[in-house]
Amino acid sequence: MTYQNIVERKIMWGDLDSVGIVFYPRYYEWIDACGHLFFESLGVNLNDLMGKRQIGFGLVETGCRYFKPGRYHETIRITTGIEELTDKTVHLNHRITLASDDTLTVEGFEKRICMDLSNPDNIRARDIPKDVVEKIKRQ
Amino acid sequence: MTYQNIVERKIMWGDLDSVGIVFYPRYYEWIDACGHLFFESLGVNLNDLMGKRQIGFGLVETGCRYFKPGRYHETIRITTGIEELTDKTVHLNHRITLASDDTLTVEGFEKRICMDLSNPDNIRARDIPKDVVEKIKRQ
Amino acid sequence: MTYQNIVERKIMWGDLDSVGIVFYPRYYEWIDACGHLFFESLGVNLNDLMGKRQIGFGLVETGCRYFKPGRYHETIRITTGIEELTDKTVHLNHRITLASDDTLTVEGFEKRICMDLSNPDNIRARDIPKDVVEKIKRQ
Amino acid sequence: MTYQNIVERKIMWGDLDSVGIVFYPRYYEWIDACGHLFFESLGVNLNDLMGKRQIGFGLVETGCRYFKPGRYHETIRITTGIEELTDKTVHLNHRITLASDDTLTVEGFEKRICMDLSNPDNIRARDIPKDVVEKIKRQ
Repeated sequence: MTYQNIVERKIMWGDLDSVGIVFYPRYYEWIDACGHLFFESLGVNLNDLMGKRQIGFGLVETGCRYFKPGRYHETIRITTGIEELTDKTVHLNHRITLASDDTLTVEGFEKRICMDLSNPDNIRARDIPKDVVEKIKRQ
Repeated sequence: MTYQNIVERKIMWGDLDSVGIVFYPRYYEWIDACGHLFFESLGVNLNDLMGKRQIGFGLVETGCRYFKPGRYHETIRITTGIEELTDKTVHLNHRITLASDDTLTVEGFEKRICMDLSNPDNIRARDIPKDVVEKIKRQ
Repeated sequence: MTYQNIVERKIMWGDLDSVGIVFYPRYYEWIDACGHLFFESLGVNLNDLMGKRQIGFGLVETGCRYFKPGRYHETIRITTGIEELTDKTVHLNHRITLASDDTLTVEGFEKRICMDLSNPDNIRARDIPKDVVEKIKRQ
Repeated sequence: MTYQNIVERKIMWGDLDSVGIVFYPRYYEWIDACGHLFFESLGVNLNDLMGKRQIGFGLVETGCRYFKPGRYHETIRITTGIEELTDKTVHLNHRITLASDDTLTVEGFEKRICMDLSNPDNIRARDIPKDVVEKIKRQ
């Protein structure tokens, strides 16, 4: 699958740690946000999916590898795509590069599984809804 | 009203900014948490109040004054009390001191108003429930 | 003073609390970032000012009033300007509105004082450097 | 290596997302903090190591697997230990369990490499200092 959504953001003062580089949990905040924006770019509103249809994508695993620290007011580009799609799971890949020269700074992933949230006492894995799969595959 | 709840926490690496002092939004995260713990210490679970009774304490105003920057692995003590209580509002005060020598580092407040959340399309101010007022006044 | 800098951002999933509205310390993260961007828009890089000239704008007081909760994927507009400027202090005002219809959602401020950071054991208030004052007044 | 450091913390309102479970970047904030506390428990102050000796542990890779969502005011226990130690690298493991019944909720890791930060323009990998290795091995 080659469809990708690209988001740019500027590294802000509050993202930095005491040595002036990005405090790494911020990268996870950004890739989580970019996962939501990726689905939105496909026409899938994850908030509505949860609120109106009680279907969510629960986390199985996340990870990042770090190649170059991010610094004050650098603009980064986060490119999000699907690495793997199965009946129940989606594996998102996020590449973070410097907007200035395209240097790879961080590469992250999120493995998620589709869940039926309608009964909070019995949350179960379920197939990704057909309309969502179609929106993904249309790209 | 003189009842107070005291919480200690250690300033962590991820709380610091690029000059090695606490990034100030962290203080608001802590005082919000200490507001919840203050109510819990009175026997009021704010999460249940929202989830089970659709009653919440919405924000009107918050503020902090800064006297001394917080640094790596210092232990701070957050003392939370009620400054003012009216039928519909509660005004919490939070004093943050160094645990080592009681130096005042930050003083913050939260003004909140009790809200009926049962109809999301028509959220309205309401009186603080009697059982909650009693738990506050019992102290 | 009427010069203002405007920044738009989208409210993300990770900004929300358990009732689906913005967790208020996020507003402070955003207004801090917008203070930096305000100075950058004037040609003043606060990171360089600290790193190269050991001059910083320390916090005296911050505050926010809340008018309307922010929700998932709403675009907000943060308008930052100077409320008051003295020899040693700057008072920034930040108005947060919905980009869709300009509703005021939050109004915040930061009062900062210029500091000489060259001797970490003796940090003192100092006049705002002339070149910085000129860049502010030029607008 | 079997020495472990254990930290307890309570999940707070501000740690939760819109469905009332922990927003996952918070876990990374906590395991980063617990890495610092692990070293401190060995007598190694990472902040001093950076500030006074220009030696830091840079990130190579981090990751988490998620087994059970964390909820409001649950107390979690984070158990940190060293999975692998080489001349230049340290691989920390963090197990997050419920304090109430020891259920495993999240398992995370951080792979770090020792770096000479004395020349910001030429940051290089270096051996972990002998005194630090000794403090690790003494346990």
